[in-house]
Amino acid sequence: MPDALKVALLGCGAVGTQVVRLLAAQADDLAARVGAPLELVGVAVRSLDAERDPVVDPALLTTDAAALVTRADVVVELMGGLEPARSLLLSAIAHGASVVTANKALLAVDGPTLYAAADAAAVDLYFEAAVAGAVPVVRAVRESLAGDRVRRVLGIVNGTTNFVLDTMTADDVDLEVAVKDAQRLGYAEADPSADVEGLDAAAKAAILASLAFHTRVSLADVSCEGITALTADDVAWATRTGHVLKLLAVAERLDGGISVRVHPALVPVEHPLAGVRGAFNAVFVEAEAAGQLMFYGPGAGGVPTASAVLGDLVAAARHRVLGGRGPIESSYADLPVLPPAAAVSRFQVRLDVADRPGVLAQVAAALAGLGVSIEAVRQTPGPRDVGPAHLVISTHEATEAARAATVAALSALPVVDRVVSVLRVEGA
Amino acid sequence: MPDALKVALLGCGAVGTQVVRLLAAQADDLAARVGAPLELVGVAVRSLDAERDPVVDPALLTTDAAALVTRADVVVELMGGLEPARSLLLSAIAHGASVVTANKALLAVDGPTLYAAADAAAVDLYFEAAVAGAVPVVRAVRESLAGDRVRRVLGIVNGTTNFVLDTMTADDVDLEVAVKDAQRLGYAEADPSADVEGLDAAAKAAILASLAFHTRVSLADVSCEGITALTADDVAWATRTGHVLKLLAVAERLDGGISVRVHPALVPVEHPLAGVRGAFNAVFVEAEAAGQLMFYGPGAGGVPTASAVLGDLVAAARHRVLGGRGPIESSYADLPVLPPAAAVSRFQVRLDVADRPGVLAQVAAALAGLGVSIEAVRQTPGPRDVGPAHLVISTHEATEAARAATVAALSALPVVDRVVSVLRVEGA
Repeated sequence: MPDALKVALLGCGAVGTQVVRLLAAQADDLAARVGAPLELVGVAVRSLDAERDPVVDPALLTTDAAALVTRADVVVELMGGLEPARSLLLSAIAHGASVVTANKALLAVDGPTLYAAADAAAVDLYFEAAVAGAVPVVRAVRESLAGDRVRRVLGIVNGTTNFVLDTMTADDVDLEVAVKDAQRLGYAEADPSADVEGLDAAAKAAILASLAFHTRVSLADVSCEGITALTADDVAWATRTGHVLKLLAVAERLDGGISVRVHPALVPVEHPLAGVRGAFNAVFVEAEAAGQLMFYGPGAGGVPTASAVLGDLVAAARHRVLGGRGPIESSYADLPVLPPAAAVSRFQVRLDVADRPGVLAQVAAALAGLGVSIEAVRQTPGPRDVGPAHLVISTHEATEAARAATVAALSALPVVDRVVSVLRVEGA
Repeated sequence: MPDALKVALLGCGAVGTQVVRLLAAQADDLAARVGAPLELVGVAVRSLDAERDPVVDPALLTTDAAALVTRADVVVELMGGLEPARSLLLSAIAHGASVVTANKALLAVDGPTLYAAADAAAVDLYFEAAVAGAVPVVRAVRESLAGDRVRRVLGIVNGTTNFVLDTMTADDVDLEVAVKDAQRLGYAEADPSADVEGLDAAAKAAILASLAFHTRVSLADVSCEGITALTADDVAWATRTGHVLKLLAVAERLDGGISVRVHPALVPVEHPLAGVRGAFNAVFVEAEAAGQLMFYGPGAGGVPTASAVLGDLVAAARHRVLGGRGPIESSYADLPVLPPAAAVSRFQVRLDVADRPGVLAQVAAALAGLGVSIEAVRQTPGPRDVGPAHLVISTHEATEAARAATVAALSALPVVDRVVSVLRVEGA
């Protein structure tokens, strides 16, 4: 068997510790799969004093990450954040190492720089764990669909918000209560804002869109709306109309370019994404030839994420043993990223209206004036008895610009007491 | 850009025609992804006279497949069957070509020969389309989970039987009627036996088990029971007890070896596999670190299958451009394949019994005598009013041997009129 491949680990938190553990526990299997033993040559940490799992050999710890990356065949980066992660990865690549990273923030902001550096150095850059934890969607889009054309990606890529929306649905409680529940159970951070405001999902949307459409998409291109405005009433109405509320990362090819966005959406109950519960992630992909695919699994957690990191590590290591390398990302398609107003969705409008004849005619006329076509209307008291009449309107596809204009136009109608919500419908 | 890579196609049926179409339609995208153009140098067919889609250039057709495979960089085999497919693939490999195949029968019977030949010649052998059509489960198990340890694979890998079981559930009809429906809609062959008897699923189970456990598993190792014995009554009772009936391919690691089998099973409605409808396929994988993953998509059809073939073709071609190759299968684990009697499941027994006191005690005693532990009992008239009393017993895990003995022991009890069914429960 060839000489051992030198592996350097940057960062030793929940995921890093599990990577160290699995490298030791499965050393023989890994060596058989790679065709050479994997030797952990160092673990870069911020401080040598922190308490650590005994699985991490103290002799391997170093605070000199910059030196460590120059003496490895494969560098695994699990530090997160932009710097020093970016500089260290670029240095590793410049020194000829292949790299594996779970750093979604860095990839979303500066992925193309990393792709280009890896391409120039002819080394592998793998990042399965950056998008949906253990769910192997990056490999599927990058490799399995390499002979196909992706039309649309719909992802539940943030387990915290999925858990929160589930709790709101099951317990009929408002967001605040559900977030506290999630915090108590360890599914949400003390400061949950990156999750509930959709920023975590937006970074993943940028990465997925880059891969799916071979186009440079950065975090700044993603229009992002979180779940903070959703109420128990929205969730109850979703159920009542045969939907489930999900926070979706959406990347789709439209005429003239691509739309990349994160927002809550009503998903029909019979859609495969509707059944994705709790902290699980799932990514639904529509491709021209393959049709509808879905990838499902744990979206976070030290152990599952470590599995994704090790899959990447084995692939990168095996390529070094065999003398080749895997796929290199290229942005050859370079499709324009369309402005948020160009995104197209069906949507569902809920209105409190005066209970008198002619109201529907006025509302319908207002929508028609904006070019928004009505698919169905339902007039009924709300589940919480919110007013004399509650109007639920489902529209056909309309642009985001038309959706925004709809809110303004309907709010201005004297017969409309209140525009309660205007939610997008996806997957119908 | 480097010289074009020569691609040879063996077979030009529904999938082959779509591969030809996609190669032409997406030539520029494919060249960008591979790093070199792909040139179709020949299409081997049985007869030059058959009617063909105009997308297939008649000048490329040849009946001399043996000569064609010696002048290609990548050979794509879509003929099916054992011979001449096996000889042609071995010849292609011996001549230094990488190979892509959708031939589940050949891989199930003689996969290790092909793996070994590809390994010795240092070329790629890809076969994503052989297991679940467009669903990228082969790549996931082979590569994404390469750093993990698979515990269990549960697959709905035959769309025909899934459609038939769906129809039985939705329309409350017997198997025969549902099969006729499937035939009318093009989801079942005129002779549906390979599907309904589970043979197609068994070939896929053998391939999945080989990959998941790095062990030689051939079709002969798979114990196989189809759906032909299932009745509308079984399906109705499944619904009534919170389950869905599915034909499952199961591969799992047990103490002392692995169990590989195909049989109908009751799947709890809340399990992700329960929602897989119609002709879709899905494979549910439990791995030690990654946890529960599921892969879902179209399991058949010319266009989706062609997408999977092209994904493999791009990977194999890219490796040639870069001077490397992808994963090579190895059977390093060589776990014993356990005999069918060693398989372990929970199961649900339905009995018609005499309606008098003490019946349950006798039944429970008979099960206890076989070491089968009861989880729950329900005594009720059946949905079709099948007799004076109907007993539904759910057991804890027991071996297949105990399951068979249970049928014999209960049938012999005077208080038991009839053992109506004994179905395995999976995914609970």
